Amino acid sequence: MLGLMQDYPLLTHTILDHGALNHGERELVTRSVEGPIRRCTLAELRSRALRVAKALEREGVKLGDRVATMAWNTERHVETWYGVMGLGAICHTLNPRLFAEQLDYIINHAEDDIVFVDLTFVPVLEALKQRLGTVRKYVVLTDGAHMPNTSLPNAVAYEDWIAEVDDDFSWKHFDENTAAALCYTSGTTGNPKGVLYSHRSNVLHALMANQPDVFGLRSEDSLLAIVPMFHANAWALAFSVPAAGAKMVMPGAGMDGASIYELLDSERVTATAAVPTVWLGLLQYLEQTGKKLPYLKRVVVGGAACPPMMIRKFELDYDVELIHGWGMTEMSPIGTTGNMKHATSILDREAQLKLKEKQGRTPYLVEMKVVDDDGKEIPRDGKSAGHLLVKGPCVSKGYYRLEDSVLTADGWFDTGDIANIDELGFMQITDRDKDVIKSGGEWISSIDVENAAVGCPGVAEAAVIGLPHPKWTERPLLIIKRDDGSAVDADEVLAYLDGKIAKWWMPNDVVFVDEIPHTATGKIQKMELRKQFKDFQFSN
Amino acid sequence: MLGLMQDYPLLTHTILDHGALNHGERELVTRSVEGPIRRCTLAELRSRALRVAKALEREGVKLGDRVATMAWNTERHVETWYGVMGLGAICHTLNPRLFAEQLDYIINHAEDDIVFVDLTFVPVLEALKQRLGTVRKYVVLTDGAHMPNTSLPNAVAYEDWIAEVDDDFSWKHFDENTAAALCYTSGTTGNPKGVLYSHRSNVLHALMANQPDVFGLRSEDSLLAIVPMFHANAWALAFSVPAAGAKMVMPGAGMDGASIYELLDSERVTATAAVPTVWLGLLQYLEQTGKKLPYLKRVVVGGAACPPMMIRKFELDYDVELIHGWGMTEMSPIGTTGNMKHATSILDREAQLKLKEKQGRTPYLVEMKVVDDDGKEIPRDGKSAGHLLVKGPCVSKGYYRLEDSVLTADGWFDTGDIANIDELGFMQITDRDKDVIKSGGEWISSIDVENAAVGCPGVAEAAVIGLPHPKWTERPLLIIKRDDGSAVDADEVLAYLDGKIAKWWMPNDVVFVDEIPHTATGKIQKMELRKQFKDFQFSN
Repeated sequence: MLGLMQDYPLLTHTILDHGALNHGERELVTRSVEGPIRRCTLAELRSRALRVAKALEREGVKLGDRVATMAWNTERHVETWYGVMGLGAICHTLNPRLFAEQLDYIINHAEDDIVFVDLTFVPVLEALKQRLGTVRKYVVLTDGAHMPNTSLPNAVAYEDWIAEVDDDFSWKHFDENTAAALCYTSGTTGNPKGVLYSHRSNVLHALMANQPDVFGLRSEDSLLAIVPMFHANAWALAFSVPAAGAKMVMPGAGMDGASIYELLDSERVTATAAVPTVWLGLLQYLEQTGKKLPYLKRVVVGGAACPPMMIRKFELDYDVELIHGWGMTEMSPIGTTGNMKHATSILDREAQLKLKEKQGRTPYLVEMKVVDDDGKEIPRDGKSAGHLLVKGPCVSKGYYRLEDSVLTADGWFDTGDIANIDELGFMQITDRDKDVIKSGGEWISSIDVENAAVGCPGVAEAAVIGLPHPKWTERPLLIIKRDDGSAVDADEVLAYLDGKIAKWWMPNDVVFVDEIPHTATGKIQKMELRKQFKDFQFSN
Repeated sequence: MLGLMQDYPLLTHTILDHGALNHGERELVTRSVEGPIRRCTLAELRSRALRVAKALEREGVKLGDRVATMAWNTERHVETWYGVMGLGAICHTLNPRLFAEQLDYIINHAEDDIVFVDLTFVPVLEALKQRLGTVRKYVVLTDGAHMPNTSLPNAVAYEDWIAEVDDDFSWKHFDENTAAALCYTSGTTGNPKGVLYSHRSNVLHALMANQPDVFGLRSEDSLLAIVPMFHANAWALAFSVPAAGAKMVMPGAGMDGASIYELLDSERVTATAAVPTVWLGLLQYLEQTGKKLPYLKRVVVGGAACPPMMIRKFELDYDVELIHGWGMTEMSPIGTTGNMKHATSILDREAQLKLKEKQGRTPYLVEMKVVDDDGKEIPRDGKSAGHLLVKGPCVSKGYYRLEDSVLTADGWFDTGDIANIDELGFMQITDRDKDVIKSGGEWISSIDVENAAVGCPGVAEAAVIGLPHPKWTERPLLIIKRDDGSAVDADEVLAYLDGKIAKWWMPNDVVFVDEIPHTATGKIQKMELRKQFKDFQFSN
């Protein structure tokens, strides 16, 4: 027997409708790509999003078509998202930091129809345009006055383009499982794979993100959305902010410490979210200028592990709650957040700061477990590490135009991470499964050794890989890039590590290199390092 | 094209699974019906809920069967809910305050199979048992030691009954639209009607309730759930508390001021929810004893309009945030809550307190509008009143075993209330549509006149009804029950009202009665009053 509640599909545009009707006066503030700060209201944003949808329909875009964006966080980008999705088309966010051949691959793989592009990235697409066979039109996210002279075919200025229509348009009706957005994730090997979000998953994810123990936005918040909209669904912010009726502040292309600080201060930002690199820039700026953060209450840090130093600075020096988060593009992306809970709020401050170094705990709607190589669940003891598996309505079951499900037989998604979970549900990632070092039947965490090594004076960057060893199967090799001018040597590094990591984790050798190879999104290419050092012989 | 996210139905038992796994140590504290305070953890509660499901299955209960409860808020009642729903059966909450003939009607209409009953209510069912043809078994929510000598057929003590099985049981899998719970709503006329919640609506409603600008529970909260589980789905608390991993405190049968205060104090309750009557009892107790509320941060008041005096006492005298809420059984039940928002947080304190008298604003997933008699939407100006219509995934589309949809042609549910909505989205109920007084083409709010009249010294209760009038169509008659010993007269009452309500709202006459008739759930029976005064002639 079915319940007798209304059939009300969870569609992303219902969020914008709610925000515009009930918080229509609330502002969106953008540092524009053209330069000046621009302001509009949620009501105006909805009106413009409707015009985007109407203009797209006039171009012949229909349910299921892919429309791409390559853009910074601006109100025009948000309008485009809602306009594309509200028409039933699929909003494909392009990460401009990808290599040209990856962009070429994903635009063609997605068969993008129309591309919205910020001024900054016009040259990127101009260089690729010959190879982008499916793209019919380029909408440059600017006005006529700033429209560049471009070789992109059928290029039009966004403001001119939406000026041709009014906002008399009704959002389309469709099933809530309809695809809403597409975001390719680039691993360290192979072609990027497309994660295909649905309207349902985006709406549920926004509700999940707005739980008080996750990001917990309220109307009174002023939220600076630094995490890019081309990065893993912008951590739900384009949906959770209008759902809460909060103010949304967007940095455009200005990601340096001074620009970020200016917005935090002038827009009295209470909550914000970004990757550690951005926060390093801000903290440096604050230290140089002696400025404080009187309005900011909480900062979400994700996308990469948050250095312990950063946790202490925000919490102790600036009295800002730091929420360490973890997720994946395949998880929409929120997996865990390090919000305190009852059992941790009674711990002392030092213990809490230590706990915040972990990736955090799952909100309702994310299930998580760690399993051994045979798929058997491992105890939640905070020590035993295993493969991290996840499940939930906002977790992928497959990739765009790849036939097979990627789930385990019982429906779990393997994150590719190695992690432990403690008794209180806090998870800590210790490695990527392909990077873990198997020594004498036990695992050595390359991440833990790297984190310890970068603390050594003179070390700029560290990478640890496992190499074959006759007795122990594998043993760790520590690869170091020195600070400019540093002459730190292997003995000094090993002496520094002594006592900081388990004895049997101690690298068998240390080598120094001029450069450690990275992917386009900044991850260390361990595969490349393993290739480079495949003939290396341990001295012991 | 569909998205590629996991097929993960929203089922109520996933909430309990989440709570038990991630907040397994968190307590549920109950003032038991037997007397002593009982404590258990979320992990234990889940284990016992699994045993309820297993024991029910052993009794032959299956998907879609109705299992009823007539019980106070206790941990056993919560276990029963989850056990019944996790089996795919439908949990039918019986309101013990209903009249015998209404209980008879709804138990037979629902065709309840098994009934769980608290000690308090055994006599209620004993008196009815001959007429309850579908009920096969009665489970008395107590242990063997407290089991009464009862004439109920096939009666068993709950603890004995679940002791016969272990918790080795897997929740059933089914569609998220499967019916989960049934709650009859009794209007002022006709038979009660059954609202049939689904698993999906209960889960979405819990996510909605836990948004920061609604009830916003976090793990650190200690929540005293006073609003009965037989009253409109307990305002989501049985779901939202385990979802957040908060502590859940339950008053059992102890609803008086002293008992409530004792739990607020001993369990360091931070948030609580109940109808105004309960708060009157608590406020009286606090005034008599001089006690304070040092732990309590916010109190949700709903089920009936919150008197302005109550708002001021909680906010000003006790420094507790009062959240005025409104909803309906048919809305799961949350419709609006009076949380401040950005545009109201900048108002002065007096203006905020005044605003809190309104019913509040909608969270995302509730749509709301007011329309005129022709169904045309009325402006959100805070003055123009009309029929209040609502829409959303947690709003009813029909009633149990009544064939027809009750929605308007375009899918809205008519609440039967007359209300206005202001520019900021705050809604204020001014009347029930069948009680509104149509005078000279305009509407007079009977509620506003009643609220003003009860402020007059000597007035215990006031009811206003419209009676035919040759010139104005209808005019208001004010019916008053005096305080014991009071001799207040009509002129004094009218003089008191002067200046407090619009001139043309002034009642044409005032009459005094010994008793104002009420329904079982405490609503004034205006229909009855209109019958009683149908031949009344206005003196002017």
